[in-house]
Amino acid sequence: MTPTPGKPRPDGRAADQLRPVTITRNWLDHAEGSVLVEFGRTRVLCAASVTEGVPRWRRGSGLGWVTAEYSMLPRATHTRSDRESVKGRIGGRTHEISRLIGRSLRASIDLAALGENSIAIDCDVLQADGGTRTAAITGAYVALADAVSWLGGRKKLARPTAIVQSVAAVSVGVVDGEPRLDLAYEEDVRAGTDMNVVCTGDGSFVEVQGTAENGVFDRAALDALLDLAVGGCAELSRLQAEALRQSAAAR
Amino acid sequence: MTPTPGKPRPDGRAADQLRPVTITRNWLDHAEGSVLVEFGRTRVLCAASVTEGVPRWRRGSGLGWVTAEYSMLPRATHTRSDRESVKGRIGGRTHEISRLIGRSLRASIDLAALGENSIAIDCDVLQADGGTRTAAITGAYVALADAVSWLGGRKKLARPTAIVQSVAAVSVGVVDGEPRLDLAYEEDVRAGTDMNVVCTGDGSFVEVQGTAENGVFDRAALDALLDLAVGGCAELSRLQAEALRQSAAAR
Amino acid sequence: MTPTPGKPRPDGRAADQLRPVTITRNWLDHAEGSVLVEFGRTRVLCAASVTEGVPRWRRGSGLGWVTAEYSMLPRATHTRSDRESVKGRIGGRTHEISRLIGRSLRASIDLAALGENSIAIDCDVLQADGGTRTAAITGAYVALADAVSWLGGRKKLARPTAIVQSVAAVSVGVVDGEPRLDLAYEEDVRAGTDMNVVCTGDGSFVEVQGTAENGVFDRAALDALLDLAVGGCAELSRLQAEALRQSAAAR
Amino acid sequence: MTPTPGKPRPDGRAADQLRPVTITRNWLDHAEGSVLVEFGRTRVLCAASVTEGVPRWRRGSGLGWVTAEYSMLPRATHTRSDRESVKGRIGGRTHEISRLIGRSLRASIDLAALGENSIAIDCDVLQADGGTRTAAITGAYVALADAVSWLGGRKKLARPTAIVQSVAAVSVGVVDGEPRLDLAYEEDVRAGTDMNVVCTGDGSFVEVQGTAENGVFDRAALDALLDLAVGGCAELSRLQAEALRQSAAAR
Amino acid sequence: MTPTPGKPRPDGRAADQLRPVTITRNWLDHAEGSVLVEFGRTRVLCAASVTEGVPRWRRGSGLGWVTAEYSMLPRATHTRSDRESVKGRIGGRTHEISRLIGRSLRASIDLAALGENSIAIDCDVLQADGGTRTAAITGAYVALADAVSWLGGRKKLARPTAIVQSVAAVSVGVVDGEPRLDLAYEEDVRAGTDMNVVCTGDGSFVEVQGTAENGVFDRAALDALLDLAVGGCAELSRLQAEALRQSAAAR
Amino acid sequence: MTPTPGKPRPDGRAADQLRPVTITRNWLDHAEGSVLVEFGRTRVLCAASVTEGVPRWRRGSGLGWVTAEYSMLPRATHTRSDRESVKGRIGGRTHEISRLIGRSLRASIDLAALGENSIAIDCDVLQADGGTRTAAITGAYVALADAVSWLGGRKKLARPTAIVQSVAAVSVGVVDGEPRLDLAYEEDVRAGTDMNVVCTGDGSFVEVQGTAENGVFDRAALDALLDLAVGGCAELSRLQAEALRQSAAAR
Repeated sequence: MTPTPGKPRPDGRAADQLRPVTITRNWLDHAEGSVLVEFGRTRVLCAASVTEGVPRWRRGSGLGWVTAEYSMLPRATHTRSDRESVKGRIGGRTHEISRLIGRSLRASIDLAALGENSIAIDCDVLQADGGTRTAAITGAYVALADAVSWLGGRKKLARPTAIVQSVAAVSVGVVDGEPRLDLAYEEDVRAGTDMNVVCTGDGSFVEVQGTAENGVFDRAALDALLDLAVGGCAELSRLQAEALRQSAAAR
Repeated sequence: MTPTPGKPRPDGRAADQLRPVTITRNWLDHAEGSVLVEFGRTRVLCAASVTEGVPRWRRGSGLGWVTAEYSMLPRATHTRSDRESVKGRIGGRTHEISRLIGRSLRASIDLAALGENSIAIDCDVLQADGGTRTAAITGAYVALADAVSWLGGRKKLARPTAIVQSVAAVSVGVVDGEPRLDLAYEEDVRAGTDMNVVCTGDGSFVEVQGTAENGVFDRAALDALLDLAVGGCAELSRLQAEALRQSAAAR
Repeated sequence: MTPTPGKPRPDGRAADQLRPVTITRNWLDHAEGSVLVEFGRTRVLCAASVTEGVPRWRRGSGLGWVTAEYSMLPRATHTRSDRESVKGRIGGRTHEISRLIGRSLRASIDLAALGENSIAIDCDVLQADGGTRTAAITGAYVALADAVSWLGGRKKLARPTAIVQSVAAVSVGVVDGEPRLDLAYEEDVRAGTDMNVVCTGDGSFVEVQGTAENGVFDRAALDALLDLAVGGCAELSRLQAEALRQSAAAR
Repeated sequence: MTPTPGKPRPDGRAADQLRPVTITRNWLDHAEGSVLVEFGRTRVLCAASVTEGVPRWRRGSGLGWVTAEYSMLPRATHTRSDRESVKGRIGGRTHEISRLIGRSLRASIDLAALGENSIAIDCDVLQADGGTRTAAITGAYVALADAVSWLGGRKKLARPTAIVQSVAAVSVGVVDGEPRLDLAYEEDVRAGTDMNVVCTGDGSFVEVQGTAENGVFDRAALDALLDLAVGGCAELSRLQAEALRQSAAAR
Repeated sequence: MTPTPGKPRPDGRAADQLRPVTITRNWLDHAEGSVLVEFGRTRVLCAASVTEGVPRWRRGSGLGWVTAEYSMLPRATHTRSDRESVKGRIGGRTHEISRLIGRSLRASIDLAALGENSIAIDCDVLQADGGTRTAAITGAYVALADAVSWLGGRKKLARPTAIVQSVAAVSVGVVDGEPRLDLAYEEDVRAGTDMNVVCTGDGSFVEVQGTAENGVFDRAALDALLDLAVGGCAELSRLQAEALRQSAAAR
Repeated sequence: MTPTPGKPRPDGRAADQLRPVTITRNWLDHAEGSVLVEFGRTRVLCAASVTEGVPRWRRGSGLGWVTAEYSMLPRATHTRSDRESVKGRIGGRTHEISRLIGRSLRASIDLAALGENSIAIDCDVLQADGGTRTAAITGAYVALADAVSWLGGRKKLARPTAIVQSVAAVSVGVVDGEPRLDLAYEEDVRAGTDMNVVCTGDGSFVEVQGTAENGVFDRAALDALLDLAVGGCAELSRLQAEALRQSAAAR
């Protein structure tokens, strides 16, 4: 099963084409790194916060720590959702995505080089149109890189090369029998199989999460989706690098 | 005690001058009304969500309902705060401000004209630099007005004149002995007395909340602060009206 | 707009007259200070608890700390309310009032003179008939003064003059077009504008919180309400002083 | 093992003597039944709240329902305890006692005669000096009886004889080797064995809960304690009947 | 009132006969002591976990600490119950039983001989058919004894004789007018009076908890139930001793 | 990268060999389907509970519903973990696994054929030694099949063929450079890459979740792990079918 010309996509994209992606650095004034990332109409604010020291269980190890928290504003979605703070508990989906983002970002960093510093990455979805977790990872990496530079500029890293590789993420799925890249919400709800893939800048895998929402999928479909995802991540890595090359002009 | 020339303000403003205010309508694609409001570096996203029907205790009354929820992103502030969803409980300050915004907005609307519809206003502080609750009220009114227009356009109002008056809010405080309008964070922490005032477009009061943070205040100080606030609210009302006059061009 | 003879009040009081106020000291045997305060049928038990030391964030500052918690028994009101402990969360109104009481009491005390001691004031409403927060502040001040004396008697104050001024509070509101002092529940629910005012013994303001429950209010109404409140607080200050002059006879 | 003259009790009572007991009816204005009960310095406010109807799982059964909630004010005790509402959870001891009170009161009532009405009894400990749960049961029965009379007076009972027997409770314990009745806090903490006994007015048992706090107890000690408890409950039943005979004069 | 031949029991047992009891030691590989205990179809997994040190409030006392937590799997019962972790709060019944188990086990141990070690006993009901709390206590004692042996084998006890006596527990109740031992669920729901009794190996009482579920009970019934319970506990103590005599062969 | 002879596995297995697997049906007496599943020392109790009807949001759809909840007993692991019920919140890992099990099981069932019935599957880990989530899915499928048969036997299915295919799951990982099947805890903690794969009985994929715990993985490693997993799932499917062929003899 290889990508074949099928029905056109709702927004006219090719099957292997990303939505327009923008990465706006320094969207916030206080955070040590911050990015407003947009994958089409999906808009996620990523803020990296540095604190000296690490959690108690890690003290004295010489290693730093990176965590992430994902959340959605109540009206990021088509209909309003109740706030998790009001409900008094965090839902399973939120937990799951926060953990995924944290694991993915830790793949990009040498925690020994970071030294006993902590970086918390907050990914708040301001508007959701599919792919919020992959946009969050892609933007969060840039915010993390800026936060690490901030530490480097203050001579607070144990070694200067704390960032060892970039990470980016994209969703892929089979819609109307066709494997497609970077699904928007309208396609996502119709996808039979849905996969989120996190890659490093040099094309290795960090996470592969595939789910048959309806029915099942075979090895050929899996292979086709992985191919698409690897291509999409490569393009996102390029955009991340480009954003990081620009001088961090004040907003 | 009248405003007197004292030490210049940190950003060079006159004592009775607002920070630059921008009101961007339709910042979100899904919400029935949405505004990104900025008072200087304070930035609040206000989203108005319409649902048909009212809470159980109000059914059959013929009256609509308007509520508000206020929240801050973890890194809106100089140092990161824990999420209330993670802590599992909403803090007193958040509760207090949510209730203030809700009461203020209900002063602008004729709930019988609204009919049995509910409007929830979410005010999420993306960046905080003082005056977040007053910016939230000022922006939320515009989002509410757009949501009411949306209902009107669908013939879902009981009567067309559901908005009866605008509301806007501003903070005032005594800093270095001088009454000043619209305090930024740096001034706010040094203020002896701090007051939040909510006015209607024709200059009546909806809420007056004054607090002596250190020491106490006398009637003269109170009068001077009220004068400043009334002037500031009038200017904000003018900016709200101007924003609402613009056609709701797609973002 | 000045107080004018209007419809008589339900209990026959003059517009500027308090309900019968009683302040019973030492109502509890264990607390370092305790007061049962009654404003008419509103009955609040105020207990001041002293502990040595201060919260972690304040240690080494040489400053003491004063906090307050407000709560209502389930059947303090006309119909029973669920317990907040059973619901597992504290409501916004409770939070708001606890914070108000705490701020008000801190205006009466020199935290440096208190030294690194903490005083927690619990205000539990045994019966509610309007004005519970203002009765709580008025009674809590007396309990606080007794707790400070208790510390003084044990030579545990940094300086003997920890109480710098008294604080008392009263509600005022416009009912049937007439500004009235110290509203009971029956008047409170009919009030167009409602204000809670906290004053020091010498007539300065600590807090001014005015709300237009229905409609709005103008500067003249605000001025009339403030006049009434200042008069009511003066009378309450006199009653507090009288109560504190009595020897603390064991109950 | 029978009661023998040992060391005198701290307050000079005989081993089989209750503390001074007072039962003040109608302590509250709003509740359908209310009692301030005092066992020495232990003071519990019991409020009975009537609502028409029963919980969903009981509807259509023709049976009423009686529940109880027990709680302590933070400074009821020698040192202040944190509020359960602030901690966000109810402790095991509170749960245990609430359930005991509810079971005990249901033994006094014919739920079919009550009809589909609910009565909630709130027992709030204003001051604790040992025996709070037994004082609560003893006072709550009187409040319950008044609430049932209130229903009877409004012709809302299915049958007039809803109260079938009185219930009262007392603690007993072995202190310094001597079985003693109605332990105050000072004795309670030194008791080797501690028992709470709930009896009906005619001397039958509703609950017997004995605990060896340190070590164990034998059958002879158990028998001696039960004898003491039966005697104490008989005296409490007499005091309840006496209180209920008085006309319910307004407080 | 002595046991008399009445209707046969549903499973044909004599009134004073236990259900088949099995005590399987070392059911788990990781725990320092573990037992699967079965009273008929009631099946409880008891795991004893040792940690060095004691809670903060006990440090430096030289005393150890023993606690217990009781819980039921959702489908231990005839119909599924919601998990307490999902509900976010622990119910009163669970709290009550956890506290009972903890108190009972502490009667078996010399906390000074235990030294500053903590043992937590988890009693998880895998299947419930009446008597879960009494099975839990009976099994937990054996797991506790194994955990103490584990500490002894590692020379971590302050003194070798930390176990001072065994404890076992059984339920008794009046069913169809007949006092019966060790009620299964079917009998339990029909019991007028229900009692849980915890005894030491030499027949002294640790806890006696009797409840009149419907109606009340007199002294004769109480005496008959206690006699039955003492006999049942003696048999359980014998089975515990037998289980502990077997070498702890790997499962 | 194909499996190569490397260091022997700790328990001597071949790289592509499962641990001993046992599937014990009807381990519980009350549940409509129940299985104790063991993958080596990992032991999970799976209980399927049937209720008539579906959640409110699904009523009238004609479709059934299947959910799952995963949990671990506190001492399932090497050291004791706190209960989530005591902490008052469910952790991210628990949520994540519960959702995975639910999605996996729904792939095995035709919800229209199930009719408006709900099946809740509880997977409680009694002992953990790696692979708890895959053992849970494998056992839960058998419990689900039994519960569906139970419904079929009572003529409560909309159509008899509600089970459309079996599902089984296994973990795979790269340990010491070698791809290995069904990791026990000791290998799991050392694995560089870790993957959980859920397959249907005919070898299609339901879920593929791969994580680089340390470093990253390339396409060849991914392919080798998928090959191993497909083989392991085929063997597990065979064992499930065998277990289901046995008559459901009473335990």
